[in-house]
Amino acid sequence: MSAKPIKDLSKLCVHTITTKPWSLEEAAENYERVGVKGISVWRQYLGGRDIAASGERLRSHGLEIVSLVRGGFFPSVSSKTREQAIQDNLKAIEEAAALGAPMIVLVCGADPGQSLVKSREQIKDGIEKVLPFAIEHGVKLAIEPLHPMYADTRSAVNTMGQANDMAEAIGSDHVGVAADVYHLWWDPDLREELLRCGRNDNLYAFHICDWMCPTVDFLNDRGLMGEGCIDIPTIRGWAEEAGFSGFNEVEIFSDRHWAGDQKEFLDKIVESYYKS
Amino acid sequence: MSAKPIKDLSKLCVHTITTKPWSLEEAAENYERVGVKGISVWRQYLGGRDIAASGERLRSHGLEIVSLVRGGFFPSVSSKTREQAIQDNLKAIEEAAALGAPMIVLVCGADPGQSLVKSREQIKDGIEKVLPFAIEHGVKLAIEPLHPMYADTRSAVNTMGQANDMAEAIGSDHVGVAADVYHLWWDPDLREELLRCGRNDNLYAFHICDWMCPTVDFLNDRGLMGEGCIDIPTIRGWAEEAGFSGFNEVEIFSDRHWAGDQKEFLDKIVESYYKS
Repeated sequence: MSAKPIKDLSKLCVHTITTKPWSLEEAAENYERVGVKGISVWRQYLGGRDIAASGERLRSHGLEIVSLVRGGFFPSVSSKTREQAIQDNLKAIEEAAALGAPMIVLVCGADPGQSLVKSREQIKDGIEKVLPFAIEHGVKLAIEPLHPMYADTRSAVNTMGQANDMAEAIGSDHVGVAADVYHLWWDPDLREELLRCGRNDNLYAFHICDWMCPTVDFLNDRGLMGEGCIDIPTIRGWAEEAGFSGFNEVEIFSDRHWAGDQKEFLDKIVESYYKS
Repeated sequence: MSAKPIKDLSKLCVHTITTKPWSLEEAAENYERVGVKGISVWRQYLGGRDIAASGERLRSHGLEIVSLVRGGFFPSVSSKTREQAIQDNLKAIEEAAALGAPMIVLVCGADPGQSLVKSREQIKDGIEKVLPFAIEHGVKLAIEPLHPMYADTRSAVNTMGQANDMAEAIGSDHVGVAADVYHLWWDPDLREELLRCGRNDNLYAFHICDWMCPTVDFLNDRGLMGEGCIDIPTIRGWAEEAGFSGFNEVEIFSDRHWAGDQKEFLDKIVESYYKS
């Protein structure tokens, strides 16, 4: 099944980290100006602000708040650090509720000092510990599988299959999966696992950007849609086949793009979005 | 099943690229001096040499030639480039036979200008085209799955599962798999897929090094065994459980280690090998 061609910006969401140099207010004004309809807010952009008022302000710019980014980082060899992670995730849930964000994206974490199996147990345990508080606050939790190159310190959940396994093992209508083409494009089981995710009503989010060839930095060299080698329309088609009808969230970390004029960059995001 | 503790160097093989600054002759002399028993030869080290005589010389240093590295790179959007790859692989087979190497490691390749599915078809087609020549020369072909971060240009085969699928689909006793902990350590299905590989007599090679935390370069920042976060003894245990009894091949690309004294580096390889 091919993706439906993108004809308007009604499903375009941009992550605040994508236009890293802008404050939350600058991002909101500029996103509205070019017709972006959704915003995913990285927590650092809320620093020193009245969070509820910030939420109101974003909505006054015609922006739907899609998610708060990011919770997670549950595993550690230190029980004290694990407890701190729980506390931080509870705080994130309060922030999401105050902001009016319906979902938190979880970068699950990993500790190179222990096995990936152990880290995965601690991730599941951490999610289950904060889940009642999330349900109480009406906030959903989206497990984001990260590319295997991040298995050392950022996430022990590295494929859609693993994220599906974990979401299904937890079995709550408040725990699902955020799928990002950057992390998942290489996986031969991706279509099948997206469909499985959809069948279980677990496909909560869809993130887009591109894989540069060559990629020169492990973190901050993502590309605009079309700059790299990911066949985004095909993967978006699979997400739609799986029943996903939410926002297409542009999440680009790029030293190269951040170094330039952010207004020009945002124009390019809109232009490349139509081809994604 | 735990790995058997390493008690001697009888199964230690070093890839010539590991001590990149040394010529083939310097590598052979130094490997012998510290007790290394196997050598895998990268093709560039044969440049300008009588290959059969080089093989004799390596053996005179007490070194068993484990593999020739590397063939592959079959996929391309260009049919001319694909044909050139076939010719180059035929040449590699001749080189392996002349050197007395029983196996060629295949870095299968990928072309970002086409789908991974297409690249995989071209890999299978390429292997099947050169296979009769390989059988005639008594040379085996080992498909090496590469880490998903190399799916853009280096290999469309990124997991043991995919490598097993391909080896089994080709179904020849001259086509198997080379397993490298650096590429595979993150995979939740690794044990199961190594066992499957062993059951089919397809586990041809086992490569070791370590994943640095953080890793600062996509290609040339691999670590000595123990420098990073890979649990090598556990994975080696799985390979042994799968029936593997060949050499443990040290294959480290490291600008950091290459910049230092190679004799000291080789001493560290031997030291860290006992812990791997």
